[in-house]
Amino acid sequence: KEQYELILRGAIDILPEGEFEERLKKSIAENKPLRVKQGFDPTAPDIHLGHTVGIRKLKQFQDLGHQVVLIIGDYTGLVGDPSGRSATRPQLAYDEVMANAETYQKQFFKILDKSKTEIHYNGEWFSKMNFQEVMTLASKFTVARMLERDDFEKRYKSGSPISIHELFYPLMQAYDSVAIKADVEIGATEQIFNLLTGREIQQDYGVEPQLVLTMPVLVGLDGHQRMSKSLGNYIGIDESPKDIFGKVMSIPDNMIYSYFELVTDVSMNRLAEIKMQLEETSANPMNIKKELGETLVTMYHSAEAGKKAKEEFERVFSRHELPHEIPEFDCSSYEGQVWIVKIMTDSKLAKSNSEARRLIKGGGVSIDGEKVGDENLELDVKNGMLLKVGKRRFLKLKRN
Amino acid sequence: KEQYELILRGAIDILPEGEFEERLKKSIAENKPLRVKQGFDPTAPDIHLGHTVGIRKLKQFQDLGHQVVLIIGDYTGLVGDPSGRSATRPQLAYDEVMANAETYQKQFFKILDKSKTEIHYNGEWFSKMNFQEVMTLASKFTVARMLERDDFEKRYKSGSPISIHELFYPLMQAYDSVAIKADVEIGATEQIFNLLTGREIQQDYGVEPQLVLTMPVLVGLDGHQRMSKSLGNYIGIDESPKDIFGKVMSIPDNMIYSYFELVTDVSMNRLAEIKMQLEETSANPMNIKKELGETLVTMYHSAEAGKKAKEEFERVFSRHELPHEIPEFDCSSYEGQVWIVKIMTDSKLAKSNSEARRLIKGGGVSIDGEKVGDENLELDVKNGMLLKVGKRRFLKLKRN
Repeated sequence: KEQYELILRGAIDILPEGEFEERLKKSIAENKPLRVKQGFDPTAPDIHLGHTVGIRKLKQFQDLGHQVVLIIGDYTGLVGDPSGRSATRPQLAYDEVMANAETYQKQFFKILDKSKTEIHYNGEWFSKMNFQEVMTLASKFTVARMLERDDFEKRYKSGSPISIHELFYPLMQAYDSVAIKADVEIGATEQIFNLLTGREIQQDYGVEPQLVLTMPVLVGLDGHQRMSKSLGNYIGIDESPKDIFGKVMSIPDNMIYSYFELVTDVSMNRLAEIKMQLEETSANPMNIKKELGETLVTMYHSAEAGKKAKEEFERVFSRHELPHEIPEFDCSSYEGQVWIVKIMTDSKLAKSNSEARRLIKGGGVSIDGEKVGDENLELDVKNGMLLKVGKRRFLKLKRN
Repeated sequence: KEQYELILRGAIDILPEGEFEERLKKSIAENKPLRVKQGFDPTAPDIHLGHTVGIRKLKQFQDLGHQVVLIIGDYTGLVGDPSGRSATRPQLAYDEVMANAETYQKQFFKILDKSKTEIHYNGEWFSKMNFQEVMTLASKFTVARMLERDDFEKRYKSGSPISIHELFYPLMQAYDSVAIKADVEIGATEQIFNLLTGREIQQDYGVEPQLVLTMPVLVGLDGHQRMSKSLGNYIGIDESPKDIFGKVMSIPDNMIYSYFELVTDVSMNRLAEIKMQLEETSANPMNIKKELGETLVTMYHSAEAGKKAKEEFERVFSRHELPHEIPEFDCSSYEGQVWIVKIMTDSKLAKSNSEARRLIKGGGVSIDGEKVGDENLELDVKNGMLLKVGKRRFLKLKRN
């Protein structure tokens, strides 16, 4: 079945394996779309390419005619996902959670078709749960099994505190699957414990257990750590064409393939070609990387913007030409000669005098193409002078 | 302060020690009664002397003018007290809990003054708690600290399952103290973890932390294990005068003092005298035990019943006289001589032929005061014959 092939793309685990293909077949035969769930914690307001790995997998299901169900964890947000955390996280305030949730919704629908997407806040069911029902949910799982979760186990063994309410995170995610009767849940690999807990809890509540599909965690621009806002190694899907393209060009070559696989739409055939090209040492990976950049700008802006961003990049970096638009800085208010460092800090090209000095000493500053050697240089500013810092920052100086 | 002396009676821990006397003084000075709490799980419908240890301590507070607050754990009953249990207990059904709770209430007021007692079901607050509030409560305590509880620790280490909902028992008991603003909580020694958790959780919710008073666990008739219904070593406060008195007479001498101290009203002076008498080897502990029996029958029936039970006991056991009322057994339907063993089993004096034979062989059976030596004896039953088995069982045989 080709649906199955497509769904496998980029996935790490598909559990239980045999059952998955069966259920896909059955769904098609009976014309009953699968309910495909993913949950999102509204803990940070921006979506970056890392998030799109799962959302795009949902989109594939959606394009195949299945029913996508997004869960926004307004109530799970109150508990906090303990994944990868070494300490109990403060409970978020409900208003904060809801504000983040709104910006999330906007961004989902840059990828998914809104009219075909079901969306739920899990407060819908948790806010109605009474004490007895919470205890019933808690009774379905043992403390020992919960502490087998990687992060809990590490924290417990190292003596870091785990608050009792944190044990509810996996139970709540699992109960979401009961509430919406999920057939499939998609999550990052690190979610495997929660996803399988979902299967168990569904059975406890008499619901057919979901299939589980895990996607890899996208590596960030640094080439090592997961893409994350707090690490600053991310590409936001709301960023400008220039920034998206520029950031793509900065990733290590060995990441090109997985970005194509996980965060773009290129066909399976093109994907196979790219793999081959990257393996041929004769090919220049720079060109494939440019294709990746153009593809991503096209996805989140337009084909035109993609083409432009690529041309602009080639003009500035590959052919060492000037970019089309260079910001100007007005030096009219200075009198006589001006200390080069002052111009750099006043224009924000450097954050501080010491940073400006460092840039000059490092040989990264030039005026009209000529390197500045002296950090004490007093410059006689002429209208139209071009100040360049590093490879990419230009400033046209103005003086009347 | 003499109030403090009285409250100390029988107690094991009073925490924090200095503070307790202070708060008693303050309460008297400001004429503000202390709110003295004890919780009861309606898991079994009968109250025995073991339960009265705490209830009688409450009664002492009540007599001193303080406010007694009983908590019936209808909601805690749903979770189940893990104390002393080696396995997760099935959650009780709510109806079962409520039925037990009703019989409990009747029995409390055999000891306490109903008009001066505040009584709450903890469902009053737990049934109103929403999901967020449950999580807030759970966030106040860590998994590691909860697993320090003796029984949890043992179960966790031995790999016995502990369900997550069980962790709520101590938190719920603690929250009860928040809800009713307890100044003092009374519990058995094994409750110390929960009682101290109450102090912490009260502080978390901005309530002045309670004082803690623990009472010993009453040893049962066997002299070793705690008094408990399931062990059958108990004296129920609803039992007949004869049974209460008889059971008291069966306790080992070394338990006499603690029964006087923990489950009777005798004055501090008389208590000191009893201690002295028991230490003098010249005194006969049997007499003190009779006083204990009479005291208890008086407490739960009447002074008259107490006196009667004692006299009856002395007639039968001490002076080897016949009891006033001897059950009769009609032998009219037998023809000719009857096998002695058949009479014993038909009349239920023995459970089986082999038991009857054993009793005869052991020399424990007599007819009209004459020991029966032959287990094959064919008896010529005469109207009015007295059959005696062991020391206490008599039967008057009838035949027309």
